[in-house]
Amino acid sequence: MAEIEPFHVMEIAGRAAALEAAGRRIIHLEIGQPDFAAPQPVIDAAVAALATEPMGYTSALGIEPLRRAIAGFYHDRYRVDVAPERIMVTAGASGAFVIALGALVDPGDEVLMPDPCYPCNRHFVRLFEGVARTVPVGATQNYQLAVGDLERHWGGRSRGVLVASPSNPTGTTVPRAELAAMIAWVRDRGGWMMVDEIYNGLTYGAREQSALALSDEIFVVNSFSKYFGMTGWRLGWLVAPERYVASMERLAQNAFICVSAPAQYAALAAFRPETLAILEHRREEFRRRRDYLVPALRDLGFDVPVMPDGAFYVYADCRRFTADSHAFALAALEHAGVAITPGLDFGTNRPERYVRFAYTRAMPELEEGVERLRNWLGAAAT
Amino acid sequence: MAEIEPFHVMEIAGRAAALEAAGRRIIHLEIGQPDFAAPQPVIDAAVAALATEPMGYTSALGIEPLRRAIAGFYHDRYRVDVAPERIMVTAGASGAFVIALGALVDPGDEVLMPDPCYPCNRHFVRLFEGVARTVPVGATQNYQLAVGDLERHWGGRSRGVLVASPSNPTGTTVPRAELAAMIAWVRDRGGWMMVDEIYNGLTYGAREQSALALSDEIFVVNSFSKYFGMTGWRLGWLVAPERYVASMERLAQNAFICVSAPAQYAALAAFRPETLAILEHRREEFRRRRDYLVPALRDLGFDVPVMPDGAFYVYADCRRFTADSHAFALAALEHAGVAITPGLDFGTNRPERYVRFAYTRAMPELEEGVERLRNWLGAAAT
Repeated sequence: MAEIEPFHVMEIAGRAAALEAAGRRIIHLEIGQPDFAAPQPVIDAAVAALATEPMGYTSALGIEPLRRAIAGFYHDRYRVDVAPERIMVTAGASGAFVIALGALVDPGDEVLMPDPCYPCNRHFVRLFEGVARTVPVGATQNYQLAVGDLERHWGGRSRGVLVASPSNPTGTTVPRAELAAMIAWVRDRGGWMMVDEIYNGLTYGAREQSALALSDEIFVVNSFSKYFGMTGWRLGWLVAPERYVASMERLAQNAFICVSAPAQYAALAAFRPETLAILEHRREEFRRRRDYLVPALRDLGFDVPVMPDGAFYVYADCRRFTADSHAFALAALEHAGVAITPGLDFGTNRPERYVRFAYTRAMPELEEGVERLRNWLGAAAT
Repeated sequence: MAEIEPFHVMEIAGRAAALEAAGRRIIHLEIGQPDFAAPQPVIDAAVAALATEPMGYTSALGIEPLRRAIAGFYHDRYRVDVAPERIMVTAGASGAFVIALGALVDPGDEVLMPDPCYPCNRHFVRLFEGVARTVPVGATQNYQLAVGDLERHWGGRSRGVLVASPSNPTGTTVPRAELAAMIAWVRDRGGWMMVDEIYNGLTYGAREQSALALSDEIFVVNSFSKYFGMTGWRLGWLVAPERYVASMERLAQNAFICVSAPAQYAALAAFRPETLAILEHRREEFRRRRDYLVPALRDLGFDVPVMPDGAFYVYADCRRFTADSHAFALAALEHAGVAITPGLDFGTNRPERYVRFAYTRAMPELEEGVERLRNWLGAAAT
């Protein structure tokens, strides 16, 4: 517990709030939640259910219609058949990680994951006394793991591999062939593979994939927070190989009893055509923002060697400006009034070179943020 | 994980469902959730908030107004001042236990708790690689721990004590003087004390207490599930000594991000006078049921040596009928169509002697259950 460090972005957010309290206007490019709330059909479904459903405990696996709706979504969108029996509804992706890693990780077990990555992924492993073995990854392989990394870093205590595609903080995805090769490699060593797909739906490249198209023997985590805009509702899901479901259900019964019922009933509307139309419109808006922000940052002098093709993040190399991205983020806040996240939050792989920009604000705010940075960096350079 | 056993009541519930599917009517005296849903003002508050609140991530500690409302409730009902800063809103009592025990328990740490007790309390300790050291307790001390037990069972690896008052499955409370003595005893040994008060509000004896009146240095878990009737919403809270809050907040940020926001906004109405009036009416209904059921069970031949003064359970000694309460519960279901929970779910302290009756059904159903048992036991005796 003592090893779970606070998020450095909290320091940024706290300082931003203090500046705002003192009357300054801050441009928020540090925020990891979409600026869109739940679509109206989802809210309407919640209101309707509150009038008709007693909202007692549900199955620890989630209400049946929601598990079937998620299976239907895999079929319709990804052309993958996932039996509803393999789908567990969870309290956000967090709940899915607690259940999956709680069931899989014994003390001392090593889990391989890329660095940079979302810090909670390390912390979940640590919570269960496992060891997150982070592997430095760079732009040449999309800031993602590849089979070569597994060959170099898999050891006697290694039990599993966790990748996120698209990734936070890099916004990059694992190429399909590489993912298939990693799944096979890990399977051959008797290990397990977990793929965090919580940013699926928010991809801007070629046809979107789910790792479940490649294997039934992997663990896939997803969430209603990002694409579906239901952050504060805390709803997600876990797909597990069939033989693990019973033990994970027991763990969920013990650790959670069930997931908040109003959120589950609301999410029944998440896959309806009218909801998906709203969500696809939002996806296009995120794409527009990315298509604006990445060239604008490059133009300012940030290095973004790989075009991010998912999520709503740009992991930008700022070494042209600084050898200390944490100090740089604090200075950008003080001097330009722009809040960004220092690389330090995402690992130990040269974090001093990187900052993360989130495009979870509307275009005018992104444009103002870029202009403010341009003025500040220009003044600093002279 | 492999050591977390399934609940035996699930076997009973599964068999009951099968009998019902075959057309039989079953009297459900096994169910651990109240038959009352959330009071209407709570539902109305949820609907109103869905129209006005974006339902984004909240603070990991919960929304400020709810933390203040809980503090106000402690002041108004228990005449105890609890600073809102010490209150964390959690995903049910389960979430509170995950956070509190996740922060307090290191691998190998021993936690003393009574046997019988709610099985999840053992499992939470086990989840974090701790050791639940259960101490057999009997009717002579209200089926609760006492200082003498701590003196006999506290060892070199012991770090904490967990009691539930009122208790599931026994419905009994810890006498105030004994609780104060245990708190002092544990404190003197540098250990921690945790009191599960999730059945507070549902007490039927003398003036209700909170352990927080006795000490600021203990951990108290509570829930909106039982007294407040919000089971499926998954909302509870944890009160911690002030110096633990920052580290527990970090753990909550990592493990949960936050608690489902619609439930938090709904609960703002839980402490309003009109809601409390509804809840007090329900409390009286539970008291009526207890006052009927306990004498009725004694009349049937069950031994209930201590009148339960809280929760909605009767832990009944059935050794007059059987040496195997698990077989007895299955037989009661098959032959009398009455579902009850075998003692096996609550520990290893002579569970074969006990079954748990829950009075979470209306009086006519309780009466029918008793009559069915009377007919079956009478026929079995002849």
